Amino acid sequence: MEFFPPALERLIEQFARLPGIGRKSAQRLAFFVLSLSEEEAAAFAAAITDAKTAISFCPVCQNFSEGEGPCSICASPKRDQTLICVVADPKDVAAMERSREYNGLYHVLHGVLSPMNHVGPDDLHIQSLIARIASGQIQEVIMATNPDTEGEATAMYLSRLLKPFQVKVTRLAYGIPVGSHLEYADDATLMRALEGRQEME
Amino acid sequence: MEFFPPALERLIEQFARLPGIGRKSAQRLAFFVLSLSEEEAAAFAAAITDAKTAISFCPVCQNFSEGEGPCSICASPKRDQTLICVVADPKDVAAMERSREYNGLYHVLHGVLSPMNHVGPDDLHIQSLIARIASGQIQEVIMATNPDTEGEATAMYLSRLLKPFQVKVTRLAYGIPVGSHLEYADDATLMRALEGRQEME
Repeated sequence: MEFFPPALERLIEQFARLPGIGRKSAQRLAFFVLSLSEEEAAAFAAAITDAKTAISFCPVCQNFSEGEGPCSICASPKRDQTLICVVADPKDVAAMERSREYNGLYHVLHGVLSPMNHVGPDDLHIQSLIARIASGQIQEVIMATNPDTEGEATAMYLSRLLKPFQVKVTRLAYGIPVGSHLEYADDATLMRALEGRQEME
Repeated sequence: MEFFPPALERLIEQFARLPGIGRKSAQRLAFFVLSLSEEEAAAFAAAITDAKTAISFCPVCQNFSEGEGPCSICASPKRDQTLICVVADPKDVAAMERSREYNGLYHVLHGVLSPMNHVGPDDLHIQSLIARIASGQIQEVIMATNPDTEGEATAMYLSRLLKPFQVKVTRLAYGIPVGSHLEYADDATLMRALEGRQEME
């Protein structure tokens, strides 16, 4: 049912296709676009087409990249070229980078193993990871998939797959989150935090 | 802080400017755009610029309109030209139209009186409403602003302003919403529902 002029309806429909945006929110966003100046609306539209044309995947780590060749992280001489952090999604790279603690390379799987959703090893960027490790330069692979069932299973699967290459495979530590309260920690997390306890210096 | 390629960061920033969209949601939406085909992304961008250029305000009722001259509702010969429904926003026109019950014209104020937010009578489309009523064709004006303090005050203000024109001014009925439960109705609504009770036929 259309109660707005066609051009507005089309914009609402486009917004409504976005994940997590319902018809009401789409309306609100479309009204906001109409409230923008011509230049602002043009900049918004240009950002969409620009991102789509400019952004590709790094042929090495499969993270988002701009332009041809390896991404800025893979190409950086400041990065530790013997260390790979394996993550499920590009947004996990962003999360790791925010920590400012990690200085190695990445490998983005673009998903996790999920039999329920018919995602198997061939649907993930696993072959390219194997190829990188087979090249011999890598000394340690850090599994940084999410600490849920699927992330866990994927880390486990990869760790076994990498055994023959005699590379060190590690997993991010489990434990209580910094700044949280013990009373709100779930049993599994608390158990893992106990198991992984470390001597104080 | 930028952890994504510039073109992607720009798209995330554009989404983050939308009302109700935080940085995390903006990231999710930008990733979704990257997952679209070139054509789909182009259609999205075109919808934004098209809406912005094609949509204007109807010079008569101030509702969204496409092209020059009066909007499709104002120009429709099927509409009762003696009846005006006054609403705060274009989305309220859409709500009224959904009811399929109303067959008159509209007038969109583009806001309500709100001293707290420094919105006075001159900030709303009130002069053009007066002009329409002064033309003599209108017999009834239905106040359909929201049933909250500001909508109420705006309806009251307009109703007094229209007194000299000897036009019938009505207000949408208050009462319990259809399909709701009495036990969940608030006191004010229940009081209004009692006051407005009608004899059953």
